[in-house]
Formats: sequence, structure tokens, C-alpha cells
Amino acid sequence: MAILVVGSVAIDTIETPFGSVDSVQGGAASYFALAASLYDTVRLVAVVGEDFPPPFLASFQARGVDLRGLRVMSGATFRWGGRYHLDMNSRDTLFTELGVFADFRPDIPDAYHDSAVIFLANIQPQLQLEVLRQMTVGAPASRLIALDTMNLWIETARDALTDVLRQVDIVLIAEEEARQYAGTTSLRAAVRHLFSLGPKVLVVKQGSYGALLFSADGRFFAAPAYPLEDVRDPTGAGDAFAGGFLGYLSSRITAGHPLSALDYRRALVHGNILGSFACEDFSVARVKALTPSEIAARYREFVDYTHFEGTWSSEQ
Amino acid sequence: MAILVVGSVAIDTIETPFGSVDSVQGGAASYFALAASLYDTVRLVAVVGEDFPPPFLASFQARGVDLRGLRVMSGATFRWGGRYHLDMNSRDTLFTELGVFADFRPDIPDAYHDSAVIFLANIQPQLQLEVLRQMTVGAPASRLIALDTMNLWIETARDALTDVLRQVDIVLIAEEEARQYAGTTSLRAAVRHLFSLGPKVLVVKQGSYGALLFSADGRFFAAPAYPLEDVRDPTGAGDAFAGGFLGYLSSRITAGHPLSALDYRRALVHGNILGSFACEDFSVARVKALTPSEIAARYREFVDYTHFEGTWSSEQ
Repeated sequence: MAILVVGSVAIDTIETPFGSVDSVQGGAASYFALAASLYDTVRLVAVVGEDFPPPFLASFQARGVDLRGLRVMSGATFRWGGRYHLDMNSRDTLFTELGVFADFRPDIPDAYHDSAVIFLANIQPQLQLEVLRQMTVGAPASRLIALDTMNLWIETARDALTDVLRQVDIVLIAEEEARQYAGTTSLRAAVRHLFSLGPKVLVVKQGSYGALLFSADGRFFAAPAYPLEDVRDPTGAGDAFAGGFLGYLSSRITAGHPLSALDYRRALVHGNILGSFACEDFSVARVKALTPSEIAARYREFVDYTHFEGTWSSEQ
Repeated sequence: MAILVVGSVAIDTIETPFGSVDSVQGGAASYFALAASLYDTVRLVAVVGEDFPPPFLASFQARGVDLRGLRVMSGATFRWGGRYHLDMNSRDTLFTELGVFADFRPDIPDAYHDSAVIFLANIQPQLQLEVLRQMTVGAPASRLIALDTMNLWIETARDALTDVLRQVDIVLIAEEEARQYAGTTSLRAAVRHLFSLGPKVLVVKQGSYGALLFSADGRFFAAPAYPLEDVRDPTGAGDAFAGGFLGYLSSRITAGHPLSALDYRRALVHGNILGSFACEDFSVARVKALTPSEIAARYREFVDYTHFEGTWSSEQ
């Protein structure tokens, strides 16, 4: 079994109050793949141009990412430039050069059809639908489909987005985008609206404040964010979060465990952990260098940071 | 033993997207006293005018609040009017009529000098200093002094605020105000700066996202906010939070327990709980009507909402 991601692989230029980097590894699928591959085998469907730097490819290969779905087309790789404001909560896009990504049509290799988890990273909902159209054969019964989205698609492709929402099991969405999609200021009402479309699990991302987990059967779990010393570069934090969350779930499925409510909670904590590591350095630098023992240590910190009843390992 | 609060008692006019109320019970010390009195005896030092409505006084008496420190002066009670924006995270002050509060000089009754916990609610730092000057005799060795503050005092009375910060044990402060006071974007750096002044415990309030607990010995705890269906009126939520937090600590001291790190964590959860109840209705309506069993039920929900390791009461 394995986890399939479809999304953007890009070359980024980033400015934050802590510095700037030029032509670094980026794109939602890059952050996701490097994070999720710490937990399970990742299969990547994306497109790059002939200018895609070999060291970026090597970073995927070092983690055993299956690249049979990565198309190299003649032309330029998707390039994105962004500048963060002092508070790191808002950013300006400096440029977007789609390059070969403009003509991206996902083509899922046959060998990927048995993936246990599918992550539709933040791309046009029409492309997310196209992936699902191709994934109809050989699907394991327990297959989980998850999607991420953004305000742009809520505004410009709402109907297609609604079509995808009806076909997925897990939705990862920022709090303000959940409210925006549902047209309400009440997060609870927004969550009910999203569940009415079919998903069984909702992950509401709150940026530097953590994440909330809702399930269609009424369960709720909240995980605060890891208290970082500095956020050097928040680019890709949400995708690394998705990688930790779905990577953990995929690893449990691969190990033969039926997923429990507790697995989803622990997955959310792993999402927070990977999101926090992603912010510690520019581009994918920190996630690329991350080790399982660093994840385990931060997980123990999270248990200590959040528990106040019952027994847990740390002495109080 | 008991908990002493010094702060504003006011008459509020509030508009939110859910409705509006005119001439209702308000003021930081009102919210605090009605919340903390669910845990321990509260002693109130404040000033009101002759127009202060008897039902507001009765709400304090119904909770056994010691009103010997409440001065009734000729003139009008402090009146405040505010209007919340749609997202509830920002508000406009419509009017501030200080009335008798303009000449408020705290005068602490002798009988209050043995209070185990002192809460300097959000008033001018010069008045907070005056309270501490008067509280030098008969203090129990384990006495805890806590303060709340706001951006106005950081901007207009920074030196006096720094003087108070040097004399208190616990600081309750909003996240953005901690950063503002310390002049840094890093919350961790702001926390270190505040600890360098002397406090042993810092409670960083994150509004609708929850609260963080830092201790000078390096411990950390994070409690997410309770997921309310609707925030009808956030006025006084921070003061009700302080009432739950310090009320719980005071009840432990009164019961003869030396405070442990775990007590502080549980106190933070009680703070979140009282803050969440405060938002459920206009003015002090919800806190005034609150019962210990409702607090206990929400506490059990909090345990369930936040735990993912070890054993706790709820079945997963």
C-alpha cells in the first residue's frame, strides 16, 4: 500500500523578515511528499520542466518517493515568488509563472491505482475531479481520499469544488476558508455544511494556532500548535501538515490496523509536528533533513504540552 | 482565605451581529467576580455611582461576593459602549463615560489584607501599584498576585506597567500585547523578556484560539479554546477567563494544597471554560447563571477534546 499525491512541484523564491532565498524547492506536492515519506511510501503525480534541478529530484529519491508519475515536459517548471509580512500571517505573491504546469493534466500510472490514501493537493478542483475519474479500478475497499483547497477555488470554481467535496473522505481546509465556503461566521455551522456533502472527517487548519479535527459522528479534537522559537518561512507548512497527518494514517493502514478515532487524533498531532518543522527553515530544508527520532521527540513534547488529566509518560 | 479583585464595575451597551443590549452589567471586575465566586470567596474593590442598579448588586450578593470594598459615590457609574464587527475579533468603542471611575483611588479594607490571591484587573498601572502599596501587612507567605493589562497601558503608561510587572507573580496578557510590550515578533522572545522582570507564570491569551501557560522554570502547556456554536458577545471573556483561572488556584490554596504544575494546567482549562461560557450570552448573563455542575461537564468535555495518549475517563 502507499500514499498518492497529486499537486504542484515548483521552484520558489521567498522573502521573509528572516531573509530570502532564490530558486528553491517548492510546491504543495513537494512539501507533502517529503513529509509523508517519513511515514510510508509516497507516489508522486506532478509535472516539471526540463529545468527542474537534479538535486530536487534527488531529495525525493532519497526518501524512496515513487516518481513514475512525475512527468518531465519541455518548458519551464512552475515558478512562484512570495514575500511575507512582518507578522508572517499574510503574504504577497510577487510572481506566478505557470510554465508547464499550465497544461498539467494528471495521468495516474496503473501501478498507483491500489494506493491506500490519495491526497489531492491544492490544485484546480477540475484536475482533482480528473484524478478521481481515473482512480476507479483496483481501489482497496478502505481507500481514503483527502483534499486540500484554497480561497481561489472557492471564488472561481465553486461548483467543481463542491463536486470533489462530495467524493472525498477527508477535507483539509483553513478555518477562514471553511467559513467562506459555507457562508457563515459560525465554524460549527460551516462544519455541518461540509459534512452534509459527504466527507467523514474535517481537519480545520488554524495556522500558527493549531488544528481542529471534526468527525461526521460528532467527535471533536483540538491540537494547539507547537510553540516555535521563530517562524522563518511558513511556505508549505499546510502541505507538510497534510503529509504528517495522512502519512501517519497511511502507515497505520499499511501496518494492518483499522483506523480508530485515536489514530485520527494522533495523526492530527503528527500533522502539527510536520507543519512546525516546515516553518523552522526556508523551503523544504527542514523537512528534507528530518529524522523519525526528531518526530518522536517532538511527539513526546506534544503529549507533555497538552495533557492535564489521566496518566501519561511525563512527570508532573 | 479569599481572592481579592480590584477593577472596573460598569454599565455597558453592546452591539454584536447577534443583537444589542442597553445598560447591562459590565466591567472587568464584574465578570471576574461572578466567575471566580464559583470557586472561592471573592472580595471586590471598585467604585460605582448612585445610579448602580440594585439587581447588579444582588448578582454579587447571590454569589457571596464580599462588597465591603465597593464604594458607592455620588455621581454616575462608569459607562462603556461597544460594537463588534462581523468576525467578533475586533470592536469599536462607541463611548466611554468614566463617571465616578475617573476619581477611583483603590482603598483596600483591612479585612482584605490576608487575601491569598490578588487580581489587579485591567486598570491604570498606577492604580495597580497603589493597591500593592496598601497590601504590605498581613500578607500570607504563599500569596499570589496576578495582573491583566492592555495595549492602552503599554502605549501610555509603560514605565508604571513595568513597575507592576516587577511585583507580580502571574501575568495574564493577550498574545499581541505580549509581543507589543517586548517589541518582538517572536512570542518565545516576548515570554523570556516578561520573565526577566520577575513573574513566575505567564498566561498568554489567544482569544478564540485558546491560551498558553508558560512558567519561569521552562514548563509549557497549551489549551485550545472550547468550540462554541456561536459567540454572541465576547465582552468580558478575558475577565471571566481570569476568574476561572485564579478562582481555581485560590480554591486549591483554600483547600490546603500547595499548588503543583498540574494545578496551573487545570486552572488554565478552567479559565478557558469560564471564558467560553461568558461568550454564550450578552453581558454577564451566562456567567451569572452558571452552576458548578455545568463547569464540571465542560471540564470533562475538555479532557476528551484534548487527550490522545495515556488513560483518561472517556472511551476512545
